[in-house]
Amino acid sequence: MPYRVTAYAPGSVGNVGPGLDILGLAVSGAGDEVTLEWRDDAAIVIADAGHPELPSDPSQHTAAIAAAAVLRRARVARGVTLWARKGLPLSGGQGGSAASAVAGALAADQLAQTNLGAAMLLECALEAESTVSGRHADNVAPSLLGGLILVRSTAPIDVIRLPVPAALRVVLVHPDQQLRTRDARDVLPRAVSRDLALAQAANIAAMVAGACLDDLALLGRGLDDQIAEPARVHLLPGFLEAKAAAREAGALGCSISGAGPTVFALVDSVAGGELVAERMLAAYAKAGVRAVARVAAVDFEGATVR
Amino acid sequence: MPYRVTAYAPGSVGNVGPGLDILGLAVSGAGDEVTLEWRDDAAIVIADAGHPELPSDPSQHTAAIAAAAVLRRARVARGVTLWARKGLPLSGGQGGSAASAVAGALAADQLAQTNLGAAMLLECALEAESTVSGRHADNVAPSLLGGLILVRSTAPIDVIRLPVPAALRVVLVHPDQQLRTRDARDVLPRAVSRDLALAQAANIAAMVAGACLDDLALLGRGLDDQIAEPARVHLLPGFLEAKAAAREAGALGCSISGAGPTVFALVDSVAGGELVAERMLAAYAKAGVRAVARVAAVDFEGATVR
Repeated sequence: MPYRVTAYAPGSVGNVGPGLDILGLAVSGAGDEVTLEWRDDAAIVIADAGHPELPSDPSQHTAAIAAAAVLRRARVARGVTLWARKGLPLSGGQGGSAASAVAGALAADQLAQTNLGAAMLLECALEAESTVSGRHADNVAPSLLGGLILVRSTAPIDVIRLPVPAALRVVLVHPDQQLRTRDARDVLPRAVSRDLALAQAANIAAMVAGACLDDLALLGRGLDDQIAEPARVHLLPGFLEAKAAAREAGALGCSISGAGPTVFALVDSVAGGELVAERMLAAYAKAGVRAVARVAAVDFEGATVR
Repeated sequence: MPYRVTAYAPGSVGNVGPGLDILGLAVSGAGDEVTLEWRDDAAIVIADAGHPELPSDPSQHTAAIAAAAVLRRARVARGVTLWARKGLPLSGGQGGSAASAVAGALAADQLAQTNLGAAMLLECALEAESTVSGRHADNVAPSLLGGLILVRSTAPIDVIRLPVPAALRVVLVHPDQQLRTRDARDVLPRAVSRDLALAQAANIAAMVAGACLDDLALLGRGLDDQIAEPARVHLLPGFLEAKAAAREAGALGCSISGAGPTVFALVDSVAGGELVAERMLAAYAKAGVRAVARVAAVDFEGATVR
């Protein structure tokens, strides 16, 4: 049994367009890292929460909650000390809480050599994610498994890894703003008209078909969120302008990443992505919002032990 | 220019499970046939409506409405005489009104040699379908194009032909009952909770992924309609018992075909289909409902000129 394990989990775009709570995409280039070390007592102790604003109470930190859930399932009575290294912004809409949870779960699984398997690790990460943003798996699942994930159900867990068109790239634009997931969820409508529900379902189904059939244009046509996006626009100054700029610069589509404030655009090349990023930043600047952008590939590996 | 044309269009399962209005499957073995012949005047005249209960008023018969829509778009001033031959039951939930519309549109297109193309023919058939059951394309699109069709949008028309797993077969069970599409639509909820909308979207997306990835088990797990089916159960005596029997006999899934009363089950072999059909008929019989069943292949050809 190892003495210390470090695991990494990538960030992700949750709520991919119309896929509110059900479609998530792992994104390379930034993620969270969690190190666990056995203790002599039974406590879970956070030595480094990863960020001054993150709780050092292990019952409130997603990495610690997920690690504890794994150790409990593994019937391990021994405690661990935890160090988190945040590569993802807090309340950024890039799946940071999920990545920490996944890295915590995977590190604990490796430390205790329990091999719980993907479904159980997902369950443990979901337990953690639920404490900060509700029981939805569209960030934890891609963060663990990599790629583009359809979450058919969370009870029982049923996630499907979809093919990803090779040319697909993701532009992430992060305005200088924090938006708590809970606040962004509170504005969601509790009910929708049947017509709206069907239109949204048709669009998510089209995105799935576009991914499976390697049809980027179809993926783009389906990227049209009529439920969450309209409800959140007022929380996100500059978003509509940036979205218009993205479409104009040739993006396949553009929407809010997770609960925001990060915005993503899907593009079909790195060069196209750079143009889209530039135009989106210009639109944010014009709206008086500072922002940073990057063009990323899809992360196909998911969480790994380092 | 030909003097007379006959076109055939297959029946279809609309509302495939959670795919209310957006997923349809063309089914082989039964369909409607429409013959058109030029007239010397400008009238559209129905010589044979195809069934005593079908209207002989050309503004009320889907085949005639669709044919007239094609001729109008083709700027043809000449009229036609129309003979319909119904292979599909009336108000059966097997896409009969759509098949007649599609056959009428295709026959007119061939008669006038206009080659309007699939999108325009769909639009003409939709115009006809709208008069009897609302503007939805989940029957007309598979009836015209064949196969499994995702309707992303009807305005503008955007339909996607999905791959179909080779082993897929369809059991159609038709209880001795008529159910007008309009009546079956009136019971649908006008609004649904966000959670329900998302669950339905996840299931339809899973069905699409299952079809694209040749994963029949996934296709079956997604076949779970939580919006239309619960609302219509009370209109369909024996359905719940037949569905339970289908699942028990190994069907991938079972739901209402279109607006009913026909019920369909998806299976992974002809032999499996025969067992499922037998058990479903027994369940209907036990519930005091007479019914007939057949096991069909997917119709990949769609509408054809004969």
